[in-house]
Amino acid sequence: MTIAVLPGVYREMIEPHLPDWIEARFWEDGEELKALSPEAEIGWFDMFDKTDALVALERAEKLQWLNSQFAGVDWMPLDMLAQRGVRLTNGSGLNANAVAEFAVMSMLAEARGYGDLIRAHDRKEWAKWPSSMRELKGSRALIMGYGEIGSTIGRILEGLQVEVTPMRRSARDGALGPDQWRARLGDFDWVILAMPGTPETAGMIGSAELAAMKPEAVLVNFARADIIDQRSLADALHAGRLGGAILDLTDPEPIAPDHYLWDCPNIRITMHMAGLPTPQMREETARRFLANCEAWNDGAPLEAEVDLALGY
Amino acid sequence: MTIAVLPGVYREMIEPHLPDWIEARFWEDGEELKALSPEAEIGWFDMFDKTDALVALERAEKLQWLNSQFAGVDWMPLDMLAQRGVRLTNGSGLNANAVAEFAVMSMLAEARGYGDLIRAHDRKEWAKWPSSMRELKGSRALIMGYGEIGSTIGRILEGLQVEVTPMRRSARDGALGPDQWRARLGDFDWVILAMPGTPETAGMIGSAELAAMKPEAVLVNFARADIIDQRSLADALHAGRLGGAILDLTDPEPIAPDHYLWDCPNIRITMHMAGLPTPQMREETARRFLANCEAWNDGAPLEAEVDLALGY
Repeated sequence: MTIAVLPGVYREMIEPHLPDWIEARFWEDGEELKALSPEAEIGWFDMFDKTDALVALERAEKLQWLNSQFAGVDWMPLDMLAQRGVRLTNGSGLNANAVAEFAVMSMLAEARGYGDLIRAHDRKEWAKWPSSMRELKGSRALIMGYGEIGSTIGRILEGLQVEVTPMRRSARDGALGPDQWRARLGDFDWVILAMPGTPETAGMIGSAELAAMKPEAVLVNFARADIIDQRSLADALHAGRLGGAILDLTDPEPIAPDHYLWDCPNIRITMHMAGLPTPQMREETARRFLANCEAWNDGAPLEAEVDLALGY
Repeated sequence: MTIAVLPGVYREMIEPHLPDWIEARFWEDGEELKALSPEAEIGWFDMFDKTDALVALERAEKLQWLNSQFAGVDWMPLDMLAQRGVRLTNGSGLNANAVAEFAVMSMLAEARGYGDLIRAHDRKEWAKWPSSMRELKGSRALIMGYGEIGSTIGRILEGLQVEVTPMRRSARDGALGPDQWRARLGDFDWVILAMPGTPETAGMIGSAELAAMKPEAVLVNFARADIIDQRSLADALHAGRLGGAILDLTDPEPIAPDHYLWDCPNIRITMHMAGLPTPQMREETARRFLANCEAWNDGAPLEAEVDLALGY
């Protein structure tokens, strides 16, 4: 029997489908996790507060395979896992559809002044005219980063008859490359950030890039906060040099009530909600883990295995 | 020369492109319209308040072709137009995309609790968890009525990987017919009304139909208010027998601040905003009118010509 130490929140979805060579032990909190982890051969130690998870990992000397539902694994001691020969699978791509639906929703909502309708309804007042009434159809979107999230946003926008131009590491199939997108910034009604964060992406959208965008364009960020120079963005919005901004991410998070971002004109802050686990995402997370159990036992390739040297 | 009496709000979009056999006279208000209409051979008399437009029509004895940007022409004296031999073109289909984008936006917004994020931002408060976090992907939608609006909603939802089932007058290509949809109501997460209003559709969604829907299902109405029995809907929402309702239309409009609909749980009233003219819609309206000028002069069929006997 292989001992697997797994999160109690997934018990109902996983336990009935586990193969019989696995003996599952479920943890409900950090204390239980730390107590169970030394016996774990298969582990799944995700916690929002990482302190207990890190102690549990330290103690998990029998661990052979660690699973995580998170896409980012930079909180883990990857060197230690590599030294111990632990294999790691992550949640890469699992939240792509949820993020993409949320991104498109927020674009549609800004295009039609939906916030004003929510507020009017709250006041029990029949609004007469929306503050914005653009259609997405026929507009042009640059999607920076065309991985799972970017390409899913692209597919949904194409269903909305938006003209989509991807920017990706290698220019092909109509996509712009890293050296081409700046010169084209003025062509787009929407500039959507959906790339993974790397050292090169920090500050990628600064005052020069904002100035190159159409004055009606909307900047949409579902990637990393640090890609945008926030002060320059606030200046552009206050000066009316940009149509608007939709930020799922800010630096820091959360921002305090007196932070300058809240009051920028035409800004929508969505509080890192886009990728929170939906029921569909939990099902897919459980399905992937169960499929990986079979693959691990068969010596087959694991889905979403992380290269411990690269960190993704 | 043929005299055309046209709305001033379209002057900029139309005048530069008019053929040289048309002498255009533009009206800015009801008084101007009434003064100009007796000479009109081609007319475009749309006003929100119909009083002056009806007087202008009465006086327009030289009229040969009347254009309207509205889809509904039941406010016009169709018998009189028929007797005078006037041809009529309307705005049928022009707002389909705007309505469809709005409908899908409102569904996405309800699925992700977007209203709470708007309110939290207004309070400058970083919300921690949304009130709803469903994905549209993988859900099932029944779209009642599969004309321009319904089929555009369907196409966008398919881009979102929603499983779409149309209901149309004749069952074909996987669509349900008028005798089949009631038995299938319990299969859908979304029941979307997008059919034209006719005497048969009044009260079509009453207590029996609401009871047959899934308790988590959301009823979405972008068709006519009277299709839904509003009292039964309110009862179902208060009893928690229905997941929610999105109403672009209510009976009457507007509803007063003390109307019972405002306070129903999980209701979203969008105040007949879905089909308001967007810039794209105005462009398409102007384009259609100009194309119809050519067609009229060539004796070719007019786009969106109304059958005066049928009224659509």
